[in-house]
Amino acid sequence: MEHVLSVQQFANKALLDKLFASAAKMQALDPTKYPKILKHLTLATVFYEPSTRTRLSFETAIQNLGGQLITTENAAQFSSAIKGETLEDTIKVINAYADGIVLRHPETGAAKRAAAVSGVPIINAGDGIGEHPTQGLLDTYTVQRAKVKIDGLKIGFAGDLLYGRTLHSALQLLALYDVEFYFLSPQSLGLPEKYLKELDKRDVTYRILHDWGKALTEVDVLYMTRVQKERFKSAGDYQEVKDDFILTPTLVKKMKKDAIILHPLPRVNEIPPEIDDDPRAQYFQQVRNGLFLRMALLESIYR
Amino acid sequence: MEHVLSVQQFANKALLDKLFASAAKMQALDPTKYPKILKHLTLATVFYEPSTRTRLSFETAIQNLGGQLITTENAAQFSSAIKGETLEDTIKVINAYADGIVLRHPETGAAKRAAAVSGVPIINAGDGIGEHPTQGLLDTYTVQRAKVKIDGLKIGFAGDLLYGRTLHSALQLLALYDVEFYFLSPQSLGLPEKYLKELDKRDVTYRILHDWGKALTEVDVLYMTRVQKERFKSAGDYQEVKDDFILTPTLVKKMKKDAIILHPLPRVNEIPPEIDDDPRAQYFQQVRNGLFLRMALLESIYR
Amino acid sequence: MEHVLSVQQFANKALLDKLFASAAKMQALDPTKYPKILKHLTLATVFYEPSTRTRLSFETAIQNLGGQLITTENAAQFSSAIKGETLEDTIKVINAYADGIVLRHPETGAAKRAAAVSGVPIINAGDGIGEHPTQGLLDTYTVQRAKVKIDGLKIGFAGDLLYGRTLHSALQLLALYDVEFYFLSPQSLGLPEKYLKELDKRDVTYRILHDWGKALTEVDVLYMTRVQKERFKSAGDYQEVKDDFILTPTLVKKMKKDAIILHPLPRVNEIPPEIDDDPRAQYFQQVRNGLFLRMALLESIYR
Repeated sequence: MEHVLSVQQFANKALLDKLFASAAKMQALDPTKYPKILKHLTLATVFYEPSTRTRLSFETAIQNLGGQLITTENAAQFSSAIKGETLEDTIKVINAYADGIVLRHPETGAAKRAAAVSGVPIINAGDGIGEHPTQGLLDTYTVQRAKVKIDGLKIGFAGDLLYGRTLHSALQLLALYDVEFYFLSPQSLGLPEKYLKELDKRDVTYRILHDWGKALTEVDVLYMTRVQKERFKSAGDYQEVKDDFILTPTLVKKMKKDAIILHPLPRVNEIPPEIDDDPRAQYFQQVRNGLFLRMALLESIYR
Repeated sequence: MEHVLSVQQFANKALLDKLFASAAKMQALDPTKYPKILKHLTLATVFYEPSTRTRLSFETAIQNLGGQLITTENAAQFSSAIKGETLEDTIKVINAYADGIVLRHPETGAAKRAAAVSGVPIINAGDGIGEHPTQGLLDTYTVQRAKVKIDGLKIGFAGDLLYGRTLHSALQLLALYDVEFYFLSPQSLGLPEKYLKELDKRDVTYRILHDWGKALTEVDVLYMTRVQKERFKSAGDYQEVKDDFILTPTLVKKMKKDAIILHPLPRVNEIPPEIDDDPRAQYFQQVRNGLFLRMALLESIYR
Repeated sequence: MEHVLSVQQFANKALLDKLFASAAKMQALDPTKYPKILKHLTLATVFYEPSTRTRLSFETAIQNLGGQLITTENAAQFSSAIKGETLEDTIKVINAYADGIVLRHPETGAAKRAAAVSGVPIINAGDGIGEHPTQGLLDTYTVQRAKVKIDGLKIGFAGDLLYGRTLHSALQLLALYDVEFYFLSPQSLGLPEKYLKELDKRDVTYRILHDWGKALTEVDVLYMTRVQKERFKSAGDYQEVKDDFILTPTLVKKMKKDAIILHPLPRVNEIPPEIDDDPRAQYFQQVRNGLFLRMALLESIYR
């Protein structure tokens, strides 16, 4: 039994190599050939906050591998949570039915709390501003899949680097490789100090920039993020910076021909749809890669 | 790949014959013999507004044909729609998981917009006051199944002919045959002019009536509809007309012995439950027919 | 065809013996060996009020037995109920898709009303303050499984005996055996008179107590319940009694070594988590037993 709680568990290049190889193998299979390693097993997706994308990705992965599925897409409102049941009790109850639990919860540390009482694997599908390890893994897998070698890449992160949970996860995995980071954000939305310190300790090269400057012409990977209105204290604060890192077709033209543009989605206006057909736009491919990454992850747990 | 967006796509008697024959064949099968044509495929039901009936019908059809199912029964509230994601992006994301999307959306034209960006079939399960093609198809299938020949029938539509989306769809298909229509509604809820013009152009005979008169004794098919409170500007306007076309056991007695009564459901008071046991009452059979019509439709797309 | 509406249908020791033996047989099977008696059948879980626990239990049971599943976890808000459709019509519509319906509804008698119009089995998964027969069955199954023989046991019920629907169901089944009851509750939350009269008529021995006294040292089974805030007219009334029957580790120490503690869950503070690891705490095992009891029940209906 193995819980998937944090990207930290995957901070190991050999482990990532193996996982990505397994995902790539899944992705090359004809759907009729997916290994039915979850046959006779029931997996539960327990979502305390909305995330249709992540839920449907896991639910497709589970079924592709032959698993049975039980699901609750709004656990907070409809479970016994409203009668005052603790997360721990809910997890112990679902242990009576399921052989694994994919958990999404608004509170940081919820996945760890669940794992502490669970006899079946807990897979963290996002816990507040905490972790979203499978997103970090699929981001890194997408870079590896598109660029073959991660070592040597210049990787830019643009937009909201302060609250962007997914990029914090991706960052920690990509920093394992010999890469150079560009952090592109408004002053008020810079990468938290703790991540910078971590990078310093590991001697990772990075630049902190507050406008596009020449960065766009240099990066091999551009990881865009949405500036989330709900994170700001006032509408004015949001208005001031929301459009600082919008990608336009003109800007994309400046990018390297073989660069790739990623985004954890949903996007709002930071990448206009005109860019979607550009071969550098890989954000929908990134979603598809996520399905196979999750299948590989389930395989690594249940095989 | 083929999208199902509008009844217009089916405005062809040969096509309808083929589809209805296929549905009838499905309906005659023992459940153990349903063809597993969706095996290894995943279909998504994405509902932006409530329609338990339509959703469960499609979900049964998908599973009867061996397909995997991912579902969201309240996409509007729980998907990334609340974070500002466009329908187009949501569809492109679900393309990463699913081999087909059954879409219900409150906005007219939503299915067409979805189809424009989708690499997998979109099946319109209702888009606002726009189309609900599978309902129109199942209504017509029910008439054909019960009466064998549609040509020569007198078909009455009663109740709210102004807003009744399902009857607008059914009307367009039934008008392909040599039929005579009776439009029975309060003055304020008559069939929109555009449909009347269309019927005139195609030389279809119809009568416009504002009370039951002798129509009930003449029709072979009576398609009842609910007068929807939510369509009226004032409660008074609704009160005034809501009971004009209520079917009573006394009225049903006047109908031909082999006439059939249809209703897209849900009903409120326009058909009292006492009528349900009359052999002419075919509205629950209509629901059942819908399951097989949808199975036939899926077969025509994925076979 | 057989509906499951009330524990009264199971008020027969031979019938219970058979059902519990079948559940125990299921529980001893390797998951790869579950009999696929629901293959090619579709079961619907239709929940008009939240009960994630009960829903997931049934949904796991259905899938373990090879059945297809259609589900609505918030029928009240999202079905055509909001358009004024009656429960009867909804049931008749779902009859068109499903071979059985697991129904949860807030109104007493709803399951019986559903059964009156349904051509497929209705399984009552709780209707208001009415019945919750499968909970009563699983409670009794748990007692039988843990203690082997029910005859001769001293069984205590503690907490809210007035509104506790699940214990009312369990009580009626356990009273079939040669047992002695202890009813432990605040004055204001005593067992309703009608149950006491029933016990008197059947010559069942019981004691009515308003504090723990020596009961704890005597009972073989302690069935705890949650005092439900929502049942009280004023917050003060609730505050006054809510903590009268809280189990503490010190109290548990006084219990017989081989006693068992049950709870229908969710719990709030009446059983602190420190007690969970005590071998007497059987409430999570009780949840697991419920899965197999429900599988056995489905087998008895569809075999």
